[in-house]
Amino acid sequence: MQFDKTTKPLDLRAVSIRDAFWGAYQERVIDHMIPYQWEALNDRIPGAEKSYCMQNFRIAAGLETGEFRGFAFQDSDFSKWIEAVGYALTLRPDPKLEQLADSAIDLVVSAQQPDGYLDTYYIINGLDKRFTNLKDHHELYCFGHMTEGAIAYYQATGKDKLLAAMIRFADCIDANFGPQEGKLKGYPGHEVAEMALMRLYAVTGDEKHLKLAKFFVDQRGQSPLYFEEETRKYGNHFPWEDSAFQYQYYQAGKPVRQQTTADGHAVRAVYLYSGMADVARETRDEELYLAAKRLWDNMVTRRMYITGGIGSSEYGESFTYDYDLPNDTIYAETCASIGLMFFARRMLEITPKSTYADVMEQALYNGIISGMSLDGTSFFYVNPLEVVPQACAEDHLRHHVKPTRQKWFGCACCPPNLARLLGSLGTYVYTANADTLYVHLYIGNRVHTTLSGKPFSLEVESAFPWHGEVTLRVLEGGNGTLALRMPGWSNSRVMTLNGEPVTPAIADGYAMLARQWVAGDTLVLRFDMPVTIMAANPRVREDAGRLAVTRGPVVYCLEEADNGPDLHLIRLHQDAAFTQVYRDDLLDGVMTLTTQGEALSTPWQDDRLYQPAAKDQYTPRPLTFIPYYAWANRKVGEMLVWVHRR
Amino acid sequence: MQFDKTTKPLDLRAVSIRDAFWGAYQERVIDHMIPYQWEALNDRIPGAEKSYCMQNFRIAAGLETGEFRGFAFQDSDFSKWIEAVGYALTLRPDPKLEQLADSAIDLVVSAQQPDGYLDTYYIINGLDKRFTNLKDHHELYCFGHMTEGAIAYYQATGKDKLLAAMIRFADCIDANFGPQEGKLKGYPGHEVAEMALMRLYAVTGDEKHLKLAKFFVDQRGQSPLYFEEETRKYGNHFPWEDSAFQYQYYQAGKPVRQQTTADGHAVRAVYLYSGMADVARETRDEELYLAAKRLWDNMVTRRMYITGGIGSSEYGESFTYDYDLPNDTIYAETCASIGLMFFARRMLEITPKSTYADVMEQALYNGIISGMSLDGTSFFYVNPLEVVPQACAEDHLRHHVKPTRQKWFGCACCPPNLARLLGSLGTYVYTANADTLYVHLYIGNRVHTTLSGKPFSLEVESAFPWHGEVTLRVLEGGNGTLALRMPGWSNSRVMTLNGEPVTPAIADGYAMLARQWVAGDTLVLRFDMPVTIMAANPRVREDAGRLAVTRGPVVYCLEEADNGPDLHLIRLHQDAAFTQVYRDDLLDGVMTLTTQGEALSTPWQDDRLYQPAAKDQYTPRPLTFIPYYAWANRKVGEMLVWVHRR
Repeated sequence: MQFDKTTKPLDLRAVSIRDAFWGAYQERVIDHMIPYQWEALNDRIPGAEKSYCMQNFRIAAGLETGEFRGFAFQDSDFSKWIEAVGYALTLRPDPKLEQLADSAIDLVVSAQQPDGYLDTYYIINGLDKRFTNLKDHHELYCFGHMTEGAIAYYQATGKDKLLAAMIRFADCIDANFGPQEGKLKGYPGHEVAEMALMRLYAVTGDEKHLKLAKFFVDQRGQSPLYFEEETRKYGNHFPWEDSAFQYQYYQAGKPVRQQTTADGHAVRAVYLYSGMADVARETRDEELYLAAKRLWDNMVTRRMYITGGIGSSEYGESFTYDYDLPNDTIYAETCASIGLMFFARRMLEITPKSTYADVMEQALYNGIISGMSLDGTSFFYVNPLEVVPQACAEDHLRHHVKPTRQKWFGCACCPPNLARLLGSLGTYVYTANADTLYVHLYIGNRVHTTLSGKPFSLEVESAFPWHGEVTLRVLEGGNGTLALRMPGWSNSRVMTLNGEPVTPAIADGYAMLARQWVAGDTLVLRFDMPVTIMAANPRVREDAGRLAVTRGPVVYCLEEADNGPDLHLIRLHQDAAFTQVYRDDLLDGVMTLTTQGEALSTPWQDDRLYQPAAKDQYTPRPLTFIPYYAWANRKVGEMLVWVHRR
Repeated sequence: MQFDKTTKPLDLRAVSIRDAFWGAYQERVIDHMIPYQWEALNDRIPGAEKSYCMQNFRIAAGLETGEFRGFAFQDSDFSKWIEAVGYALTLRPDPKLEQLADSAIDLVVSAQQPDGYLDTYYIINGLDKRFTNLKDHHELYCFGHMTEGAIAYYQATGKDKLLAAMIRFADCIDANFGPQEGKLKGYPGHEVAEMALMRLYAVTGDEKHLKLAKFFVDQRGQSPLYFEEETRKYGNHFPWEDSAFQYQYYQAGKPVRQQTTADGHAVRAVYLYSGMADVARETRDEELYLAAKRLWDNMVTRRMYITGGIGSSEYGESFTYDYDLPNDTIYAETCASIGLMFFARRMLEITPKSTYADVMEQALYNGIISGMSLDGTSFFYVNPLEVVPQACAEDHLRHHVKPTRQKWFGCACCPPNLARLLGSLGTYVYTANADTLYVHLYIGNRVHTTLSGKPFSLEVESAFPWHGEVTLRVLEGGNGTLALRMPGWSNSRVMTLNGEPVTPAIADGYAMLARQWVAGDTLVLRFDMPVTIMAANPRVREDAGRLAVTRGPVVYCLEEADNGPDLHLIRLHQDAAFTQVYRDDLLDGVMTLTTQGEALSTPWQDDRLYQPAAKDQYTPRPLTFIPYYAWANRKVGEMLVWVHRR
């Protein structure tokens, strides 16, 4: 294959989101999540579990005395915050926030060791123990997140204090890890450093960063197994001794190029795969690309919920096996869907095929934003497709599934991950090379980039996700191709350029419009956005005899608030006709879908648990579907995505 | 209500099973299970987890040195074995086995302490610690099981060495526990002593034993909560701190008379309820009886599988909540169904209503004997209603569900419980009072009892469970009533006495035939035994849109061996017509049920996980159902009880 090293996402500064739907999310990040998270990092949220994050930095810097507290990866809370701050400052300058961030960076960097090492867990607990439990102690993970944060902050502000510190930390890691004699042959237990190093390489151009990323990717799972040897050498605990996945929990059961199924901890997996794609693209490594592609294909055709959720089991927050997609004992962590989006964008960079963007959109409008409440103040880790509140309370197997979003978490991964994803949303809308601008997501925005070496600007207005109209208006012309994704969920579309119909060629799901664009050129796309009733592959046992309702990129659900309890007794016909009503009074404005279903009404004596089966009786029942992402924003109740089929 | 204190089960010696179906089970117990278990108790099974049971007794008796090993309740392995031996010797004298048992008893009793205490865990680990963790350390449980074993052995052989030892142990417990000032206000963490003490009372007539049983029943869950205080006082671990059931795991969340739902560890629960029923009957305590009745009703109308399995969750091996009956993540321990049978017989003793016997039969022919392989050498703890072998291997939530029976267990409760249940099966067939003999189970047997004070003998021939014909032939006449259970699953029956139709009055599900019986009187019952397709109460989510096939007392299932894989794609119509074929070449002889079902055959592109729903296509598929209890006796494969409904 031809590796296209030149197609890349646009810099966040190039894309400003101006979108009714997504603008509100970005405002929630800036106005609520970032300030709230800063309070959380500093243990000032009454009633919330303490983070200890900034306290650990103060202790590590010698400004306070005390013990390390919190999780081994607590430093990453700061890192995700500073990354989100970087994006926020890009979106909207805020001198006070920047000052706060500068002082936080001063503190963090003051804890750095002379050789560049910077992880408060080991600085406080004893540097002699560093790099002795890569498998479970997350110091390379913390390095990765802090590097991503440093780059975001540098790109937003031009200030490189944290970036320079991370380059020194990278030097320290490079001095300790690598193929050379005497260096450790280890790699991150929780991946992210691979992606981060590739992003650092893009900033520094320093081959060292690329090589280290490639080493981490390729060394993973090699025999003798580093994690096994480390466990033995240091007497570490191996939490997955009795599990089916063993070291594959860490995607380290075998070398990554030999892996064919998405296994183990779902977040780690997609972070690794993202790093693999980054390295494959940059080094034009076809074998590695094909390995990433195999893992992608396995995941999206065997192991992904219709919401873009991944990770079927709470045990190990993990993938299980092909077609095992339970809706009620599910994990589907918000972070995992975010990681899927990372992976999808990287695959798009290598080969712009619209299926990657389709999955990216599917995760974004469903399993990702379901992770936060509409007011941006409470969050789901777990994103179930079927909820019965009593089960969450009284059945241990579903105890991890919550019927209401929680305020914050001791392990604060999902909320800050949402903040940094939503803050950087602009970087997912496009990829571009010298003469082509790919439009992957139809989110309203204004973009300033170049086409064939000349400045090119575009304004996009989008009615997504409620309507399929998109208007692209050229602000500043140029010569080149606009590549417009044709969404997989749309059966027909109409395109006009300056009022005249156009029928461009479609390549890999993108309409390719090459031309000398001039200011004022106006392209209007009208995708039909019908309600589509979906079925799952028959091998998915949990969805056998069930249907899910979707419209455009949005997956719908039944909620008790609209439909009463006992949602499992409701049936839907695959040809059901829907009425679409946009309600701006409901759930911050949603398109509702109503239809006539039916509900089981066979009489039953309450004192009998089993009785001879009679012909079932059903009573017509009006049904109201709401977007899945908006569930659990009213009173606590049942929710169901996969409805029984009539 | 009127308490009938006089209706009791018959002595095992009075009933000799002569039944094609059950005779084979009893032979397996005598010929295989008891010898095998003795080897297990003595750690002589190659490859099996060690029991340490007899070794602990040798150490406790000072014959060996060493540490206590195994579970805290390891002594009970011996107790269940000696109980089964007692039954076996009743069924078939065996001087060698009796000699072996005598010497085992000599060893066990030689470990008894001067004050009667006999529990090797504390004898070895320090008697000063005894009675400091009643909640989890099982010494009263061990007392209970050893008492039941002692009584069985005494009744079989007339030898009272172990019985006398248990009376001394009861004295010791009585000296330490009770309402009196200075005595402990505790009770068993794992119930069984309640039942055992009532059985001891029946043998000794000593009020002390009755009072102690009643104390244990009534003290349970009283405030201040003994287990809570004990936990605090001795710094014990409380394993259920994070659970929804808390102390209700031990059925100690509140006083038993206030409990209305079957909660917590299922085996413990039914053992307690059995003890409650025993005490209620003997003390004519209507309030206690009504409490037991409420718990019974809750269990059988809300929390019982169609197989007579109980305990929906592996977590705590416990009940969950009303109508929560998952088929694949189920627990349904064999011991729990056995305990349900204990409870049912005790309820029958108080009020002979056929519904109790129906449930007893339901558990016996399904969830109990599914616990052992047809050759009697391997066993299930967990009795699932839906199995996919890959899920058992690769999904943590279903890892406790095994697709094949296991050889033996470190915690050897189910196999020996099966041995003692099957060995004492004769005591479940009848209950009797002065002038009425109730026939609860139609199992071929010969019974010698009394009616109105005179000897009365009966020979019963039964074609159960494959046919509904039962012949009762009077061998030795007498004046009184034969009360014949009319099974709940039978819609019509024909009864003849000496060839002439009879239509006796039915009282609480029993046909009451009062007469001066003479030798040679022959009563023939013909119950129709149709295939009945059952539905579950619509509140049972897991069974919504599903059907189960039953015939007489037997629940049927689909197995991959007969029907291929992907059983979830098969559909059955509620009016399906079945062909019944008895196959003596299959599974030791079973009635098979075949019908025409259909299997989903909608074409599906393998590379798509979700697609717009089309009208589903189904292809006719011949289906073969086998009795549930006989599943997993061929090659490993899927199994399904609740089949999707057409």
